[in-house]
Amino acid sequence: MPDLSRCSIHTMTMKPWSLAQTIAGLQRAGVPGITVWRQHLQPYGAEVAGRMLRASGLTVTALCRGGFFPAKEQVARDAALADNRRAIDEAAIIGAPMVVLVCGAVPGMPLTEARQQITDGIAALEPHARANRVKLAIEPLHPMYAGDRSAVNTLAQARTICETINSPWIGIAADVYHIWWDPEVEAELARAGAGGWLCGFHVCDWRVETRDLLNDRGLMGDGCIDIPRLRGAAERAGFTGFNEVEIFSTSRWAGDQDVWLDTIVEAYHRHT
Amino acid sequence: MPDLSRCSIHTMTMKPWSLAQTIAGLQRAGVPGITVWRQHLQPYGAEVAGRMLRASGLTVTALCRGGFFPAKEQVARDAALADNRRAIDEAAIIGAPMVVLVCGAVPGMPLTEARQQITDGIAALEPHARANRVKLAIEPLHPMYAGDRSAVNTLAQARTICETINSPWIGIAADVYHIWWDPEVEAELARAGAGGWLCGFHVCDWRVETRDLLNDRGLMGDGCIDIPRLRGAAERAGFTGFNEVEIFSTSRWAGDQDVWLDTIVEAYHRHT
Repeated sequence: MPDLSRCSIHTMTMKPWSLAQTIAGLQRAGVPGITVWRQHLQPYGAEVAGRMLRASGLTVTALCRGGFFPAKEQVARDAALADNRRAIDEAAIIGAPMVVLVCGAVPGMPLTEARQQITDGIAALEPHARANRVKLAIEPLHPMYAGDRSAVNTLAQARTICETINSPWIGIAADVYHIWWDPEVEAELARAGAGGWLCGFHVCDWRVETRDLLNDRGLMGDGCIDIPRLRGAAERAGFTGFNEVEIFSTSRWAGDQDVWLDTIVEAYHRHT
Repeated sequence: MPDLSRCSIHTMTMKPWSLAQTIAGLQRAGVPGITVWRQHLQPYGAEVAGRMLRASGLTVTALCRGGFFPAKEQVARDAALADNRRAIDEAAIIGAPMVVLVCGAVPGMPLTEARQQITDGIAALEPHARANRVKLAIEPLHPMYAGDRSAVNTLAQARTICETINSPWIGIAADVYHIWWDPEVEAELARAGAGGWLCGFHVCDWRVETRDLLNDRGLMGDGCIDIPRLRGAAERAGFTGFNEVEIFSTSRWAGDQDVWLDTIVEAYHRHT
């Protein structure tokens, strides 16, 4: 039953709220961490948002999200790199220690090719990340997103990319939603920790039945993931960062967001 | 561009049709193989269905499906074993060389425990399978079903069970829908072949977007799976069996099933 001292909430979890509303909500609820999505940053710009965040006293745990490296045309791959560099710049400005990468996939492109383009893209970004002291956190996505969102679908793949690029500015963001099913999950969390790569940990739950592939994530305790077990594995691997609550839920976003935030805080205490 | 000589279609692909209608349809279309689902067998009983199938000249490629081993209570696990023995009996009666196993999962039960119960369940069935000369084909299910349908989610897990039980009456049914995303898919198909375990190969496609977790499978060519590549990997691994078309699709089931069958046959030629 963790206290809130390592609790962070993604602005996307409170999607209907503006960044200002989410900052105020988290202050009221006593949640000390915030991960900022670029769509919530955009109306303010990074400079103004950075001032708001510093004034709030909240810890910025990450910027979401970069990535989406693979593309059929070189010009599109270059555009993705340019956009990722802007994301790194924004992270540096708002004081986010990492940019979370959803690595991308292109329907019809062989996964082997997409995977190579992802490794190449992250390697190409590394100098800009290093120069800005912002980590690139590879987030393996659930295999159900391999068709169009990410060809990196397991912790083992993310680890292999970390081993290949071998930089302290590349790491792994482990989200229980994406990895809980993996027979290797505990062994791979241990390996990620041993390599010094485990830099992010996201929590939510897997609903049974899941009604929608994208926006039906469960609140902690509303599904079948043994979150304390996975959090324990991450901590035994040396992870001391925030537990970031990242929940995409059409049904939750439709309700009162102050009530939703209180519900999250209660579930965080009980089921994380 | 394969001919139809190794084409089989699951009765579930033609869900609205009775077994008699599907037999007649496949004969008309020149499809030589049929995999029979128990719900399509049930109205006739195995004896009558077996006579119909033998008279049809079709090759029965499998009976679907057994499995669902894990349960919280011993009495429920025993009931699952008893039902699986009946499935083996039915397979023997209709001339199906294997029973496809959807191994099961219980929301809230740790996956490690479910996986142990699955291995124990298959081991307990093996003598009955051997006595009836019916194989038990472990079908790894896509990780999005780990919550409630199967805790066996990769070819590697299925292979490990085969290695553990080590019987010629245990094998693996590889369905491209469940395994296409796996970075190890080609290596594991090779291992499954080398071990003599690869006994079934199912085809369909992964739609982008997938609108529903259960019943929105795509027709070959309508999604992003490189089926010829995976079929090639299976064949290089020594697989010489049928390519079984297994498509659950609410939208396809809503249309004229004769047209649907002709559409499948055309897609089989072009995209399998």
